[in-house]
Amino acid sequence: MLKNFKLRIEYDGTDCHGWQRQAGRRTIQGDIETALRTMTGRPVTVIGSGRTDAGVHALGQIAHFRCDTHLAAPVFLKGLNSLLGQDIVIREAEEADADFHARFDATGKIYHYRILNDPMPSAIHRRYAWHISAPLHDDAMTEAARFLAGTHDFKAFEGAGSPRPHTVRRVGMADFIRDPHGFLTFRIQADGFLRYMVRNIVGTLVEIGRGKRMPEDLKTILASCDRKQAAPTAPPHGLFLIRVQYGPEEMETTRLI
Amino acid sequence: MLKNFKLRIEYDGTDCHGWQRQAGRRTIQGDIETALRTMTGRPVTVIGSGRTDAGVHALGQIAHFRCDTHLAAPVFLKGLNSLLGQDIVIREAEEADADFHARFDATGKIYHYRILNDPMPSAIHRRYAWHISAPLHDDAMTEAARFLAGTHDFKAFEGAGSPRPHTVRRVGMADFIRDPHGFLTFRIQADGFLRYMVRNIVGTLVEIGRGKRMPEDLKTILASCDRKQAAPTAPPHGLFLIRVQYGPEEMETTRLI
Repeated sequence: MLKNFKLRIEYDGTDCHGWQRQAGRRTIQGDIETALRTMTGRPVTVIGSGRTDAGVHALGQIAHFRCDTHLAAPVFLKGLNSLLGQDIVIREAEEADADFHARFDATGKIYHYRILNDPMPSAIHRRYAWHISAPLHDDAMTEAARFLAGTHDFKAFEGAGSPRPHTVRRVGMADFIRDPHGFLTFRIQADGFLRYMVRNIVGTLVEIGRGKRMPEDLKTILASCDRKQAAPTAPPHGLFLIRVQYGPEEMETTRLI
Repeated sequence: MLKNFKLRIEYDGTDCHGWQRQAGRRTIQGDIETALRTMTGRPVTVIGSGRTDAGVHALGQIAHFRCDTHLAAPVFLKGLNSLLGQDIVIREAEEADADFHARFDATGKIYHYRILNDPMPSAIHRRYAWHISAPLHDDAMTEAARFLAGTHDFKAFEGAGSPRPHTVRRVGMADFIRDPHGFLTFRIQADGFLRYMVRNIVGTLVEIGRGKRMPEDLKTILASCDRKQAAPTAPPHGLFLIRVQYGPEEMETTRLI
């Protein structure tokens, strides 16, 4: 009986070469497909909502796979978690509609990017936040982030060498929250993201926070559609895919990391 | 010129065999002593406030070392951090009084033990919290924790095979905080701790939280002075040495992990 399963996946991207399957390298997709082959005895393709790059984490990546099996979703949940390394956890598994597609049906995503803004680095948080020792002016960063909201061509923030035909995206929300322990978290929701888009935006926002650029420069960079105007890409380990959205939904509180 | 330096150290204990130097194994003390030897060209002994076991973390371990050197504290801070792995960070270094002793002068310590009480494990937090999927009744655990406050013989919670002549300790504070994301953190302050004391207490509190024992059983176990009455030791990776106290001080908010 052909079934379609939907998975919600949490992973620590530190020791993986990103989401996408690659020969000879450990990846999230590759590990889950290997585990599914072990469970079902046949090759299974897992389709994610989108790729995450090497070193990027996820609390709520969504994927689906179709499989002719008598196994039920709870069996996959338990079986996959017993086969996968501890840095990849299937948080939920459920049988989905036959036509559910993790990528094509996604209507939006939420990413968080964590910065540890502290004179000293942290041993505990080193894998999960970009450490910046220089003081950051979060007022300027918050002001700049406001220019991201709305529908824009984000070509200036697209990774070089990975052009997409359409670079217009709609950002529903982009802001910063600062906690009392030195963490500054950038939160962004959009209907879709270009490759390196969040990390390129964060790189530019950090230059604004350091006073190297002005908040309104972000507007100018956006309008230029020129990657060379933006700042270098922020490192991957501060980035978390928090949630993939399917249809309209309220913004809920997600587990902070 | 003989100087005495005080260090505040943060470390991720996951990949170390505890604080104490051991031949052929990576330890926190060993790594810092090796780095100091590189910097000063001579053997230097680092004295910690106490040992932490393999897998236990620290946000505020304190240590001192005496050294005949022209180097100033900021040079050690920078030099040590450039030589140490990213999982050991010297957060502060300062020149101390000639007679300051990290262990003998300590008047108290604060430990936190983090439990992730959630049906599913977490990929991101797996190194920094004990995952317990069964529901825990934190009211019962909080009630039991109250019996710890005060001066008691903690022999029942001392690790087997590591007896100390004096097993009476004074607990100033012991409680739980629950956050909305499933973390239950046990906080305890005492004038000193026996080996495995916090982990043995947590193991017992978890059995109380699961309803296997009653809150007042903790009182009985304490009074028995019999290790066999207490529950198995909780795993090391939920435990954090938060602060070492020297003299009276206010309880401050520490960075939550």
